[in-house]
Amino acid sequence: MTAARPPRRSREHFRRPPPLPPGLETGGRWLYGRHAVAAALANPRRRWRRLAVLAGQEKEARGLLAAARARRLGEGEALHVVAPHDLARLLPREAVHQGFALDVEPLAEPALDDVLDQAAPAAVAVVLDRVADPHNVGAVLRSAAAFGALAVILPVHGAPPAAAALAKAASGALEAVPLVRVVNIARALDRLKEEGFWVCGLDEGAAEELSEIDLGVRVALVLGAEGEGMRRLVRERCDRLARLPTRADFATLNVSNAAAIALYEIARRHS
Amino acid sequence: MTAARPPRRSREHFRRPPPLPPGLETGGRWLYGRHAVAAALANPRRRWRRLAVLAGQEKEARGLLAAARARRLGEGEALHVVAPHDLARLLPREAVHQGFALDVEPLAEPALDDVLDQAAPAAVAVVLDRVADPHNVGAVLRSAAAFGALAVILPVHGAPPAAAALAKAASGALEAVPLVRVVNIARALDRLKEEGFWVCGLDEGAAEELSEIDLGVRVALVLGAEGEGMRRLVRERCDRLARLPTRADFATLNVSNAAAIALYEIARRHS
Repeated sequence: MTAARPPRRSREHFRRPPPLPPGLETGGRWLYGRHAVAAALANPRRRWRRLAVLAGQEKEARGLLAAARARRLGEGEALHVVAPHDLARLLPREAVHQGFALDVEPLAEPALDDVLDQAAPAAVAVVLDRVADPHNVGAVLRSAAAFGALAVILPVHGAPPAAAALAKAASGALEAVPLVRVVNIARALDRLKEEGFWVCGLDEGAAEELSEIDLGVRVALVLGAEGEGMRRLVRERCDRLARLPTRADFATLNVSNAAAIALYEIARRHS
Repeated sequence: MTAARPPRRSREHFRRPPPLPPGLETGGRWLYGRHAVAAALANPRRRWRRLAVLAGQEKEARGLLAAARARRLGEGEALHVVAPHDLARLLPREAVHQGFALDVEPLAEPALDDVLDQAAPAAVAVVLDRVADPHNVGAVLRSAAAFGALAVILPVHGAPPAAAALAKAASGALEAVPLVRVVNIARALDRLKEEGFWVCGLDEGAAEELSEIDLGVRVALVLGAEGEGMRRLVRERCDRLARLPTRADFATLNVSNAAAIALYEIARRHS
């Protein structure tokens, strides 16, 4: 059988893409977005290798480097000024990079006990059960930073990595709030209770509204996946279940919006 | 000059993709996602042409059709059961379709005056100035539905269309809350004031906290783009500027999270 002649195409179609600029050929763990990159550069615990910026943003990038750590480039660090099509090729399709990308090492994720050892007398921990969307986890992390939460706690399995999409949605909060991964969420809730946390699960079917509940000064706020909610063993560990005052005929909120409201409600009462 | 021989590729590379199944060859305005599609089917004001579902979901789709409008297929409406690769080809890359896509006509977007004519004595309108991300506008619409807001008001220019990504993030709320597009946001705020709305702009630099402000029973909540905020002419129309109790060193929230918190705060006090 003879292969059919392919439809006529321009020569462009057959061309290999040109190589990436020197120093950018190899893969990396790229964070992107102005806030995510600026916060990573400002975080002394963050190791990075390559900063890639668009030509117009070279000055801002040098300013970030100089101001953030009171120095210029360190060992192994390099600034690359790149063309838009090259920056796009380093990143996922449709990444809103705002001209900034940074190739980083992942941050060390602390153990729950380490975080608890350093917790203030008044503290809020956010526990996400089965929230798989990196944009939602990143947005929760951002609200956790804005309201001064102690940590965001995720299961080892089924939660997204602390990588590009999560970091972009977190808008710098990945550098500010510890992400803690635990093997077993139910056991983590037991550990939080030992340290004096009231465990409050958000559940649109709960009888009580969050604003009516006395939560004390240490609160672990538990949210499940949209639709499915918390797993049974996690729900059973909650001291209280609370709903938000949404309409009966349109009860569900995006999980990051529900987390933001609950963090706000707790901050409002603690202030 | 002779064209270089292209690198060896498999024949797959040259094959045109097979045609889409009959009835799905032509373009459409596809909404996707279980909630967005179910809500559109349940909305009697929504015209649609084609429902495409994955094979395993045919029964659920027929249930939606039968239950939602107490009938089966109407004139011009067709149910297509499709393979995963065909459904993916109908939709944007990485669309989280959950097996459901619906080719729709856009909803008529009402005029501001029509919405105001039907407003209850207590009402909240959300006004978004320069919020361009369809996911954010969709998430705001979802919170607006959950807290019973009157409408979400956008500028004609610079706001996203009520299409796939917005509808998915709205999770059905596009069918429930009017999107109103106005030529001039500042004039729309004047019109809202005439109808007794207090215009409150959210601004992280404001002196007062939202929870400290008496907003009355009709509130127009104004949010600007992240980073840039409201335009000056819009800000000047606000009766009050309010901040949320975020930390000084990490003040900004995602715009949909800020809107959710403000809608919650107003709902909490109205209840």
